[in-house]
Amino acid sequence: MKPIPEALAATVGLRVDLIDTPALVVDLDAMERNMQRMADFARKHQVRWRPHAKMHKSAELALLMQQAGAQGVCVQKVSEAEALAAGGVNDITITNQVVAMPKLQRVARLAAQLAARGGRLALAVDHPEGIERLAEAMAQYGSDAGVDVLVEIDVGQGRCGVAPGEAAVPLALAVAGTPRLRFAGLQAYHGRAQHMASTVGRREAIAAVVRAAAHTRQLIEAAGLPVPLITGSGTGTLVHEAASGVFGELQAGSFLFMDADYARNEREPAQPAFEHALFVKTQVISVRDGHAVCDAGHKSHAIDSGLPTVALLAPERGLRYANGGDEHGILYPDGPKARLPALGRMLWLVPGHCDPTVNLHDFMIGVRGGLAMGMVERIIRVDARGALT
Amino acid sequence: MKPIPEALAATVGLRVDLIDTPALVVDLDAMERNMQRMADFARKHQVRWRPHAKMHKSAELALLMQQAGAQGVCVQKVSEAEALAAGGVNDITITNQVVAMPKLQRVARLAAQLAARGGRLALAVDHPEGIERLAEAMAQYGSDAGVDVLVEIDVGQGRCGVAPGEAAVPLALAVAGTPRLRFAGLQAYHGRAQHMASTVGRREAIAAVVRAAAHTRQLIEAAGLPVPLITGSGTGTLVHEAASGVFGELQAGSFLFMDADYARNEREPAQPAFEHALFVKTQVISVRDGHAVCDAGHKSHAIDSGLPTVALLAPERGLRYANGGDEHGILYPDGPKARLPALGRMLWLVPGHCDPTVNLHDFMIGVRGGLAMGMVERIIRVDARGALT
Repeated sequence: MKPIPEALAATVGLRVDLIDTPALVVDLDAMERNMQRMADFARKHQVRWRPHAKMHKSAELALLMQQAGAQGVCVQKVSEAEALAAGGVNDITITNQVVAMPKLQRVARLAAQLAARGGRLALAVDHPEGIERLAEAMAQYGSDAGVDVLVEIDVGQGRCGVAPGEAAVPLALAVAGTPRLRFAGLQAYHGRAQHMASTVGRREAIAAVVRAAAHTRQLIEAAGLPVPLITGSGTGTLVHEAASGVFGELQAGSFLFMDADYARNEREPAQPAFEHALFVKTQVISVRDGHAVCDAGHKSHAIDSGLPTVALLAPERGLRYANGGDEHGILYPDGPKARLPALGRMLWLVPGHCDPTVNLHDFMIGVRGGLAMGMVERIIRVDARGALT
Repeated sequence: MKPIPEALAATVGLRVDLIDTPALVVDLDAMERNMQRMADFARKHQVRWRPHAKMHKSAELALLMQQAGAQGVCVQKVSEAEALAAGGVNDITITNQVVAMPKLQRVARLAAQLAARGGRLALAVDHPEGIERLAEAMAQYGSDAGVDVLVEIDVGQGRCGVAPGEAAVPLALAVAGTPRLRFAGLQAYHGRAQHMASTVGRREAIAAVVRAAAHTRQLIEAAGLPVPLITGSGTGTLVHEAASGVFGELQAGSFLFMDADYARNEREPAQPAFEHALFVKTQVISVRDGHAVCDAGHKSHAIDSGLPTVALLAPERGLRYANGGDEHGILYPDGPKARLPALGRMLWLVPGHCDPTVNLHDFMIGVRGGLAMGMVERIIRVDARGALT
C-alpha cells in the first residue's frame, strides 16, 4: 500500500484554505449525498448497483459504497481488480476482454483468492478464442474455484462485444459448457449514449439497447440456457436502464463525483440530482492585463471530455478556464460582471471528466464542511492509480 | 524511492515480445542517438542545454544527459525539483512562477541543500510580489545560500511573464537589490511556437522572440545591471534560438523521446534528425468486422496534442488509431493495403505528446536492440510522476 508522502498538499485537520495547490479535493458531504441518492434510486427500481471503480480506483470508497448497499465493483483491468482486492473488496466484475495469457493466469489466481474469501470474480468475453484462453488459464491454475463470465454484446458503442442476437448464443453456450466457467449473463454497455447532450437522444439510444439485450436473452434462453443477469448502464442513462425491467444491475460510477461534461448535458427529470463532489484546487500564480494564470493544467485534470469549469465560489464570478498546457490554466473574464482574480488567489475547478482526472493523482483530499470553511477529514488513496495491465 | 512492483509489465532480461500491455517502452538505442545529436548540436552552436525534466521526470535520465554534456535540468514544479534532487541532480531551474509561501519555504530549503552539494537552484519571477515573497521565505529560512532568479518575459506565449522591454527592468533591478537573490538573466520561452506546423511560422515567431529578448537585455544593461543569460527554447524551434547569438541556453526536453505531434510538423533542415524513442505497447483484445480494439486508451497516453499514431512495425500497414475512451483504442484500416490485426496481436503506438504521457506511468521500460527483437535492459523510475505542487 502506498505510504502517504510528507510532501502531500494537505494533512488531516488542515483548514481547506491552507491546502496547497494544485490538489484533488473531494467534498465528502456532497459525495455522501450522491451515494445516498444512488442507493435510494436503486432500491426504488429494484436493481443492483455495482459502481464502476475505474472512476475512483479506491478500495476505501468501494467499501463505503458497499456499506450503502452497492454490490461490489466493476473494473476495466486485472490490475485494478488486484489493487481493490488487496484493499478488501471481494466481489469484482472486470467489464472488459482479457486475452493475454499472463493476465488470464492472474485472473485465475484472483478468482481463487476471492472465492476463498466468499467473494467472486467475473469478466467479459466476446470471442471463442477468449473463452478458450480463459479456460486454459483456469485449468492450468487448477483451483476448484470458478469464474463468472459475461458475454458482452455491442449495443451501439462500436467497440468491444459480439453483435447482439444470434451471434451471442454460441458464445453463451460455449461458456456454459466449459469447466470452471459459469455463464453469468450479458454485459451491454453503450458508452457513447452516456454523453449525448439531449434527453431524447439518450432515451432513444437506450430503448434500442434494451431491445437488443432482451432479444439476445430470449434467443439464449430459447437454446435452453437461463440468462441470470443483464448488466450495464452509466451515469448519463441510468434512468432508462433502471426502468427497463431488463437490466438487473447498473454499472454507473461517475455519479459519485460528477464532472463538467455530465453537467453540460440536459438532465432527465427522473435522474437523481447528483452534485459535483470532485474539485481541483488551484492558485493564481501570474496576473496580466486581460488574463490570469493558475497552476493547474492537464497534468492536474484530464481534458479528453472538455476543459474544467471554474466553480462559482469566488467573488470573481464568470471566469473562463482556457488550456495553458501541462501545468497552467489561463483565466479570462467571461461576462460583464467578471473580474480577474488577484495574484495568490485560490480557485476551484470542476474537472471535465472525473475518471482520468482521478488517475492523475495518488491521493484525494477528503474535505468535510464545504470548500469555503471546511477542513481535511481524510486522505483517500487512489489504490489503482496507473493500474493499466 | 518507489519500489518496482511485482506486477510491472516487464522485468530486466525479458524479451520485448513478452512485455505485457499496455506498457510505456523507451527504445534506449534511439534515445541515446537523440541525446548525442543534441550534445553535438549544442556544442556546434556553443550554447548550453538544460533539458526540461517535466518531460521525462526521471533522475536517472537527467544524470545520463548530464554525462553527455547537459547543464542540469529545468522543471516546472517545486516537487519535481525535490524529486530530482533526491535522485542526485544538483543543478535545477524552476522555469515557472512560485508564489505560495509553503512552496517558497521548500524553495529556500532546497536552495540551501543544493548549494551545500555544490549545486544551485533557480526560479522565474514576473511580479514584484513574487520577488518579495521569495525574499521573505529566504530570509525566514536564514541560510547563507542564495537562489538564482530569472525574470520571465512573455515573448508571445500569452501566459506567464512580464511584457518585454521597459517593464522587465524594475523587476531585474529589484532582484539584484534583494539579499540572497541573484539576478541570473531572462527566461524567454514561446511554447506555442514549438507546435506551429510550418518552418516559416516558427522562424518568424522566434525572430520576434529574439528581438524582444535582446531589446530587454539592452535596457537592463543600460540600467547598469549585466544580464548573464537568456534561456528558453524547445524542441520545435531550437534551431533558431541556438543560431540567434542571444540565447545562451536551450531548455528543449522532448527531443529525447519525440512524439507524434512534433513529427506531424514540417522539419527545419538544420534540425537534428531526432527519432521516436517512446512507445506504448498495446495488444488487440477484440476484433470485429471493420475494426479491432486495443487495450491502450487515454489512461495509457495523453491526447491533448492529438491521438497516437500506429508505428509501422506491423505487417498490418496503415492502421488508424481512434479514441476508444479511457482504456481502449479503436483501430481502423487506413488505405487499400491495410489489414486489420488479429486477436492478441501486439502493436506499438507513438504518443501524441510525450510529457503528459510519461506522467501517466510510474515506470518506463527501457529496451535495447529494437522493438522487434530486443530485450528489457532496465526499468526507469518516473521519480516525479504526479509531482504537482
